[in-house]
Amino acid sequence: MRFEIIEKEYMDLIIVKDFLKYTGKEIEPLWAFKNFNVQKDNIVAFRGKIEVDQEHMKDLKDVKREQHIKTPIRSDDSINFIVEHFDMIDLKTTYLRQRLLICIAKEIIERECNKKLKRDGDDLYYNNKKLSVSIACKGITSSKIHLGINVKSKGVEHVEIIGLEDLGVENIKEVMIKIALSYIDEINKIEKDIRKTLPI
Amino acid sequence: MRFEIIEKEYMDLIIVKDFLKYTGKEIEPLWAFKNFNVQKDNIVAFRGKIEVDQEHMKDLKDVKREQHIKTPIRSDDSINFIVEHFDMIDLKTTYLRQRLLICIAKEIIERECNKKLKRDGDDLYYNNKKLSVSIACKGITSSKIHLGINVKSKGVEHVEIIGLEDLGVENIKEVMIKIALSYIDEINKIEKDIRKTLPI
Amino acid sequence: MRFEIIEKEYMDLIIVKDFLKYTGKEIEPLWAFKNFNVQKDNIVAFRGKIEVDQEHMKDLKDVKREQHIKTPIRSDDSINFIVEHFDMIDLKTTYLRQRLLICIAKEIIERECNKKLKRDGDDLYYNNKKLSVSIACKGITSSKIHLGINVKSKGVEHVEIIGLEDLGVENIKEVMIKIALSYIDEINKIEKDIRKTLPI
Amino acid sequence: MRFEIIEKEYMDLIIVKDFLKYTGKEIEPLWAFKNFNVQKDNIVAFRGKIEVDQEHMKDLKDVKREQHIKTPIRSDDSINFIVEHFDMIDLKTTYLRQRLLICIAKEIIERECNKKLKRDGDDLYYNNKKLSVSIACKGITSSKIHLGINVKSKGVEHVEIIGLEDLGVENIKEVMIKIALSYIDEINKIEKDIRKTLPI
Amino acid sequence: MRFEIIEKEYMDLIIVKDFLKYTGKEIEPLWAFKNFNVQKDNIVAFRGKIEVDQEHMKDLKDVKREQHIKTPIRSDDSINFIVEHFDMIDLKTTYLRQRLLICIAKEIIERECNKKLKRDGDDLYYNNKKLSVSIACKGITSSKIHLGINVKSKGVEHVEIIGLEDLGVENIKEVMIKIALSYIDEINKIEKDIRKTLPI
Amino acid sequence: MRFEIIEKEYMDLIIVKDFLKYTGKEIEPLWAFKNFNVQKDNIVAFRGKIEVDQEHMKDLKDVKREQHIKTPIRSDDSINFIVEHFDMIDLKTTYLRQRLLICIAKEIIERECNKKLKRDGDDLYYNNKKLSVSIACKGITSSKIHLGINVKSKGVEHVEIIGLEDLGVENIKEVMIKIALSYIDEINKIEKDIRKTLPI
Repeated sequence: MRFEIIEKEYMDLIIVKDFLKYTGKEIEPLWAFKNFNVQKDNIVAFRGKIEVDQEHMKDLKDVKREQHIKTPIRSDDSINFIVEHFDMIDLKTTYLRQRLLICIAKEIIERECNKKLKRDGDDLYYNNKKLSVSIACKGITSSKIHLGINVKSKGVEHVEIIGLEDLGVENIKEVMIKIALSYIDEINKIEKDIRKTLPI
Repeated sequence: MRFEIIEKEYMDLIIVKDFLKYTGKEIEPLWAFKNFNVQKDNIVAFRGKIEVDQEHMKDLKDVKREQHIKTPIRSDDSINFIVEHFDMIDLKTTYLRQRLLICIAKEIIERECNKKLKRDGDDLYYNNKKLSVSIACKGITSSKIHLGINVKSKGVEHVEIIGLEDLGVENIKEVMIKIALSYIDEINKIEKDIRKTLPI
Repeated sequence: MRFEIIEKEYMDLIIVKDFLKYTGKEIEPLWAFKNFNVQKDNIVAFRGKIEVDQEHMKDLKDVKREQHIKTPIRSDDSINFIVEHFDMIDLKTTYLRQRLLICIAKEIIERECNKKLKRDGDDLYYNNKKLSVSIACKGITSSKIHLGINVKSKGVEHVEIIGLEDLGVENIKEVMIKIALSYIDEINKIEKDIRKTLPI
Repeated sequence: MRFEIIEKEYMDLIIVKDFLKYTGKEIEPLWAFKNFNVQKDNIVAFRGKIEVDQEHMKDLKDVKREQHIKTPIRSDDSINFIVEHFDMIDLKTTYLRQRLLICIAKEIIERECNKKLKRDGDDLYYNNKKLSVSIACKGITSSKIHLGINVKSKGVEHVEIIGLEDLGVENIKEVMIKIALSYIDEINKIEKDIRKTLPI
Repeated sequence: MRFEIIEKEYMDLIIVKDFLKYTGKEIEPLWAFKNFNVQKDNIVAFRGKIEVDQEHMKDLKDVKREQHIKTPIRSDDSINFIVEHFDMIDLKTTYLRQRLLICIAKEIIERECNKKLKRDGDDLYYNNKKLSVSIACKGITSSKIHLGINVKSKGVEHVEIIGLEDLGVENIKEVMIKIALSYIDEINKIEKDIRKTLPI
Repeated sequence: MRFEIIEKEYMDLIIVKDFLKYTGKEIEPLWAFKNFNVQKDNIVAFRGKIEVDQEHMKDLKDVKREQHIKTPIRSDDSINFIVEHFDMIDLKTTYLRQRLLICIAKEIIERECNKKLKRDGDDLYYNNKKLSVSIACKGITSSKIHLGINVKSKGVEHVEIIGLEDLGVENIKEVMIKIALSYIDEINKIEKDIRKTLPI
């Protein structure tokens, strides 16, 4: 797998240059260390299919609702972000960070396509069509987030989806990198904010 | 002070019905319990002036930069949100929640006025004019957030500001309540998300 | 399985209406979500047999002591409580909560039968006969407690046990619900107490 | 001040031999180290008056309700327990420990006087008369609990109280020591329980 | 297995009297409770071979680098320390404690052989030859450290090692016990330090 | 005050170029941000006198023992290190880091002067003469460590001290910088270690 690492204060960005399928196994702890040798909090960004089987799903609500579907989480073409943090690994913080990542993705996509998206918790919509899938998880020594944003509106049958191309986003790779870098900037800025604030 | 309490799962919303000045003292722990008798995580929403003196500022960076100004944080008319959480009180979580509150405020204001705002960390801008002020803080038993959004563009001299009225927002009070309720919804939804996710 | 859900501030009570055997598998994380769809801290109360095999025991001390017994934890008829918390999941807090649950059960049973029980850590006794079994556990994203209180004194051979019926408790189901509700009240009251106390 | 120290695994017991007034200042962090030189989690047990002025009260709810009373928390004669923990200092754990201390006190007093008390959160009652006062607090490096149990029913005007002597408890000092030792035993036992339990 | 337990304030020392091979399975949670019945934070000290297969290695960096070697971590004869803490189990604290254990081992060995060792993170060297192996790990309810110090310089091929005997250390067992006891003393002293320090 | 900032992964080093007196006020939170504008975990290194009055002492044990001495902590000439961490601020972690800083200082000084020092907890000695003073503290949003190492053996009367010059250390400033940089390296290495270790 060809990739590039961009080092930033508290996090590394790994941009995967080949197409890579998201199968749900990538959410496991230390996946980024195993594949890209990073020993820092990190976000891996890549483009490819999404095909998550029941057994790799972490959202028990989805598992229940879609138990009759073999591969409930799918996308023919998507940009994916896999975040791993080791500093605070409780699930609440991780879901807060997930929301922030999704807000950032929304801000960047809206600017890019000049359309207004709707965010509902960890889902992005345009005209009631689903643009994204996401989960936040906790392991014993780290926490992880996956965010997948459809590029094309194909590959899913049980929900109506939309893709970045339908929205008129042209430079998919550039948008992918912008989202990842903005998330890192936000995390770094928060680290700075913590170190300038008086207690009450 | 006249106020109304709306109880929601993990948080209460207190809507203050009179004008109330934000002076920086409201950021102190248990201010909401003292004034509104709430014994739950909460968000207090009110409209009024902002006048924070040097001695009540918690952002040491601002204190340094604006030490020659007696009342550096000002607004003639603003909507204010004071959040207090007791569940996770570390400063990192608190700043993450602050960012989320600001993303939510941005989403709601944009929908209301059909204009595109810019968020930079914990600041909202329109056309490079500052729309908001915010701080996140930690005490011994709780954490607090203040977010103030200008209604009018008066009352500040050392930075160029803009207000909701300049953006064409008409129903100020309604927007204020929507922001507060959306924040509570988000927090409640995260609590639910935590309780449906498998570990990795 | 027929059940009823009673929603209370920070916790839900699930009352199972059918007899249900406690086998030790119910202590696994998210068991209540899988079976009753609750996405809140919760206590599940039900009546039935207890039969825990070696492989589902979490108390290594018991495992050691009773390794020659295939099903060391047994009761022919018991009321059972399964608590799951997601807010603070460390084992120390969980054992403190277990003790509190047992103190509450003791208070309610004593009032009901007008007899004096003896508590020794997480065990209840009457006349040196064992009335209860209990364990507290920690997973990656939640902590759990099981408390089983014998209704009848049958089903166990290696220790002398006693049951609620031997003590003269008549309305077993009512007592079961009272214990669960009192535990929830206590937890809710502590949440309130946290939000009224000045730091030192 | 004359005192005796009894060292137990994770906690020390300090028995003060002279009468000592509880004024609310004793709740401050490291009070036991300053006075008795203990460098361990500890419980100090002593007999004496209770006279807590408004300014030393930590329960803001009481402060509000009794703001017209100069010394709202009073007792002419009481046994007092001051607990300090440094291992887990969050307020939730501290309130759980407070409840446990009160359950233990209740169990011991009931056995001693052969009467049935009523516990409501952190209050003990007999025939609707208040037997105890209590608070749990958090500082920056430790958490503290105060529990005062009336010996006599004098010294308070605004609530009806009862004392251990009214209940027929004879050996006040012995009961005081029993309660403190039982609390320590419980804490030590929980420490042991944590170290025998398999994860889920 | 013959062993001796020495009880110290917050930790127990278990000295294993027979030779015991370190295979990597000993790093699993509650190993000391299973084998020596200790229900306290503890350090187990023993002498024996080290033979850790790929599957029992916890250092993913080593796993990657030495994936062609079946048993990458080896020593023909070594003194071993296995530490288990239940009080603070996050990995950062555990690595800090590991460093402290290694600093203590270094201090004691240097005094014993009157030679100057070099420490690089969690490795000890003499003349660029490796004297030790170590890892720190986190489970769901406890954290563990393994430190192995070569007695002889045999048994390893892919790195140049040195042993205590090469350094002229004579009383191997005494040194082993000294290191373990000094670690316990340090941990106990820190517990005392925490209980004498004013907040800032 | 003239100073230089050296930025390293997770920490900044601030080298103060002028002589600076350590008075105990420097241990207060955010002192480094106020003076050197750093918004990162950091270590400030400087040379100068030490004169800490009773009122600025954080070690209550020293306060008790030396209450008759107006300025108990003194040194005519010393190198000083002030560490501030915001990532994990509990006192236990802070004392572990303090010990590590002292072990590192010992290693570097020993190498420099080719003499063997003795460490007892957080004190360094040579021939039973005290070389250093140190404290670790916790605030609401950060934790701090001070380590002072005498350069000269003057300025103290109530204990026998020794200084780096007595030990033959020549390049005092270089040693000071080496100690600070080694501490930062160790902290950075631990951050890396956390991100390569499999759970148990």
